[in-house]
Amino acid sequence: MRMYDILAKKRDGLTLAPQELEFFARGAADGSIPDYQLSAMLMAIYLNGMSDEETAALTDAMARSGDLVDLSPIPGVKVDKHSTGGVGDKTTLIVGPIVAACGVPVAKMSGAGLGHTGGTIDKLCAIPGFETQLEKERFFEIVRTVGLAVISQSGNIAPADKKLYALRDVTATIGSLPLIASSVMSKKIASGADAILLDVKTGDGAFMKTPEEAVALARCMVGIGEAVGRRTAALITGMDRPLGYAVGNALEVAEAIRLLGGEEIPDLREVCLALAAGMLHLAGKGEEAHCRLLAEQALKSGRALEKLRQMIAAQGGDSRVTEDPSLLPLAPVQKALTAWQDGFVEQMAAQHCGTASMLLGAGRAKKEDPIDYGAGIRFLKKPGDPVQKGEALAILYTSDAARLPQAEEHLRAAIRLSGEAPRLAPLLYARVTRDGVQRF
Amino acid sequence: MRMYDILAKKRDGLTLAPQELEFFARGAADGSIPDYQLSAMLMAIYLNGMSDEETAALTDAMARSGDLVDLSPIPGVKVDKHSTGGVGDKTTLIVGPIVAACGVPVAKMSGAGLGHTGGTIDKLCAIPGFETQLEKERFFEIVRTVGLAVISQSGNIAPADKKLYALRDVTATIGSLPLIASSVMSKKIASGADAILLDVKTGDGAFMKTPEEAVALARCMVGIGEAVGRRTAALITGMDRPLGYAVGNALEVAEAIRLLGGEEIPDLREVCLALAAGMLHLAGKGEEAHCRLLAEQALKSGRALEKLRQMIAAQGGDSRVTEDPSLLPLAPVQKALTAWQDGFVEQMAAQHCGTASMLLGAGRAKKEDPIDYGAGIRFLKKPGDPVQKGEALAILYTSDAARLPQAEEHLRAAIRLSGEAPRLAPLLYARVTRDGVQRF
Repeated sequence: MRMYDILAKKRDGLTLAPQELEFFARGAADGSIPDYQLSAMLMAIYLNGMSDEETAALTDAMARSGDLVDLSPIPGVKVDKHSTGGVGDKTTLIVGPIVAACGVPVAKMSGAGLGHTGGTIDKLCAIPGFETQLEKERFFEIVRTVGLAVISQSGNIAPADKKLYALRDVTATIGSLPLIASSVMSKKIASGADAILLDVKTGDGAFMKTPEEAVALARCMVGIGEAVGRRTAALITGMDRPLGYAVGNALEVAEAIRLLGGEEIPDLREVCLALAAGMLHLAGKGEEAHCRLLAEQALKSGRALEKLRQMIAAQGGDSRVTEDPSLLPLAPVQKALTAWQDGFVEQMAAQHCGTASMLLGAGRAKKEDPIDYGAGIRFLKKPGDPVQKGEALAILYTSDAARLPQAEEHLRAAIRLSGEAPRLAPLLYARVTRDGVQRF
Repeated sequence: MRMYDILAKKRDGLTLAPQELEFFARGAADGSIPDYQLSAMLMAIYLNGMSDEETAALTDAMARSGDLVDLSPIPGVKVDKHSTGGVGDKTTLIVGPIVAACGVPVAKMSGAGLGHTGGTIDKLCAIPGFETQLEKERFFEIVRTVGLAVISQSGNIAPADKKLYALRDVTATIGSLPLIASSVMSKKIASGADAILLDVKTGDGAFMKTPEEAVALARCMVGIGEAVGRRTAALITGMDRPLGYAVGNALEVAEAIRLLGGEEIPDLREVCLALAAGMLHLAGKGEEAHCRLLAEQALKSGRALEKLRQMIAAQGGDSRVTEDPSLLPLAPVQKALTAWQDGFVEQMAAQHCGTASMLLGAGRAKKEDPIDYGAGIRFLKKPGDPVQKGEALAILYTSDAARLPQAEEHLRAAIRLSGEAPRLAPLLYARVTRDGVQRF
C-alpha cells in the first residue's frame, strides 16, 4: 500500500477502504508517512469530505494508533462526557459528582486546556494539593471507592490524532467536520468508556457558530461512537454568553461548589442537570425524565457535593474548599467594570469574555504559558439583567496589574447595553442520538 | 503575511493576490515555508484551481525566485521552443538549425531528461566530444557567431519550481493544469527568451491524453506567456506513435542529420517545419505561410544542416557526424522484432515504445541512472505500412543482452498488426495563440 495512491483516491473524491485509513492513521502515528503527504491528505479530506463509514474507520484507526485504556476492572457502565469547549464551562466539576452520587462510576481522563481558561484539569489544579497525575491502579481504586476520579490524560492516547491535529493547526484544515469529529472521538474511544455523552456548544464563543453546524458535528460524532460500539449521545447547548457567573480556574471551582451547595445559578444548573440526566440515561438508569429527577435529587440532597469532597480528598486536595471556597486562590489585583448607561445587559459575547480572561492570566495562549489560577472574571450581571449607570457589571481578577487595560478593553467590547430587555438565546437546543435529532 | 491565511483563502476558493502568490513562491524557494504547508497548498490548488490571473502571477513569481537569464547581449528576437515531451522527439535538433539558418538566433538551455529517452542535452551528448556545459560568455559568443547553441540549464533557474515539482511528485498533485503550466513557463521565462513556441503533445505517449486536454494546457501556458510580456504560441501535435523512425539518443541524432540532409521522413519533417514556421512567425519573420516557405528553403538548401555542423564544431563535438552519422555510437547487441502475421501496422503505442527504449538503456528510470547513448530502437515500419509475416518491424539496440527480453516484450505489446489499413491519427491538431485556437 502506498500513501501516494491513497492521496490520489481522496483527491479524486473516491471512498477510502478501512485498510487505507488504517495505513494513514498508523503512518501518522509512527512517523512513516512524511508530513507533506499527511498535510496534502488533510487538505484533500477538508475539500472532498469523508463518508460516515470512512470517518468511523479513520476514528477507529486513530484510537487504535496508541494505548487503549481498559476500564473493565471498574464495575458498572462507565460513561464519559466531552464538551467541545466554551467560556465558563465548569460542568464536569458539577455533573461528575451528580452522576457519581447516582451510582454511576465516572473515570475521567482530561487533557490540559488551550485557550480562554484552562481545561478541567487546570481548574482542579487550582485546589491546593490536588493531584491529577495518578497511577492507573490508584485511579481505578478511587473510582471504585468514591465513584469519581478525574486525572490528566497520560500515556500514548491516540498519537495519530496528536500528529494530525498539530498539522491541521498549521495547514488551515482545523474546520473539517469529519476531522473534528474523528479527533474528539478517537481520544474518547481510546479512553475506554462504555458510553459517551457529548456537549456540543454553539454560538459566538463556540467553534460551531450556528445550531445547524453543531447538530451536524454531533450527528457525525454520535455516528462514529455507535459504529464502534459505544453508546453515544449529544446535547447541543448554547455558548453565546459565558456559562454561569465565573470565568477562570479557581473562580469556576468556587462557583461549582456553590451550585452543588444549593446556590441558585439558573443557566449553569439547567445545563448541568441536562448533561447529568443524559449520562445517567446512557448508563441505563432509565428514561431521560426519570434520570433528570435522580440528578435533581442528588444535587438537592447535597450528595453530589459530598462526592466532590470525597474525590478532592482522595486525590490529595484540600477538601475543606467544599465548605469554604475562600480557601481557593484569588488574584490580588481586582477591578470593577461599571455600566456606562442605564438599561439592560443585551449581550456578553462569550468569545471576547474568554479572551479577556486569558489576558488576565487564566488561560494559555501558548502550550508553555503558566496559568494564574486565581485570575479571571466574576460577572455580577448577566444578559437580560437591568443595570444602572455606574453599577458594577463584572470584577476582573489578576496578579499582574499591567494585564488589566487590554483585558478590560476586551471585556468592554464583549458587553452590549441597551434600553430594552433583550430576547435571550436558548440554553438547550437539541438532543442527538442514534435515533435522530430531537429539538427543544 | 502568513502562509496560513493564504492557505485558508485558497481552501475557500477565493482568489489570491499577486503578493500572496509571490510570498508562496519565494517561501518555497528559500525554505521559509515548511513542506507541510506547501503540500497542503498544492492540494488546495489542485482541487480549487486557479484563475488565469493567479496562474500568471504565480508563474512570474516562480520565474523570479532564482536567476533571470539576460539574453540582451545577443542581437535579434530570441525565440525558445519547449516540447511537453514525447517518444522519438528530436525536433529541437532539426528546428533549431532551420530557424538559425533563417537568421533568428536560438539560445537554448535544456534540462536533462527523465523517462523514455534522454532530453535534448542527452541526445547531443551522444556526439563524441560535444560539450553542453559552457560558460555564459562562450554560449553567447556561439549564438552571436553561429546563430545557434544548446547548453545544459545551469545556475539557479526557478528554484521555487524545483521545490514544488518535487512535492507535487509525492503528493499526487502533478496533474493540475495551472501547476503544470506554471512549472513549464516559469523555467522558460527565467531562461530569457523574447518569444516562446510550445509543442504540446497529445496522445498515448503524452501527458495530455486527448487533444482537448492539450488545448486547455496550451491556452493556459499561452495566457501566462502573454501576461508576462513574452510572445507565446503553441502547436498541438500528435504523440500516439513515435515521431520518426528512431528512438534513442545517438539514433535520434542520426535521424535528425538524415532529415536535414534531405532524407524523406514525412511525419518528422511535417512537425519540424510547422514548429520552425511557428518560431519564425513569433520572431517577426512574417506570415505563418511565408515562414513555412523560409523553413522549407533552409531545409532543402542544406543551410540548416550546415548550421548544425557549425554548432557541433563550436561546442567541441565531432562535426564529421553531419556527413557520416556512422561515427555516432551504436550499441553492439542488436535484435530484430519481426511481424507475426501478414497485414498492416495498425498501432505503435508511443508509451510502450518509450518504455522499451528506456529498458534497452536509452533513458533514465531514476535521476542517477547512466545512459547508453548507442541504445534504442530503429523502426523499419510505421503505422499504416503493409507488412508480411517474418518481415522485420524494428531493430532493438543495447549494450546489455540481458535487457533484451523485457524490452522486446514491451515493444511487442506496443505494436498491433491487423488485416486492414488503419486510419491514422493526425500529426497536427491545432495552433493556439493569444487570438484563440485554430484547429487543423
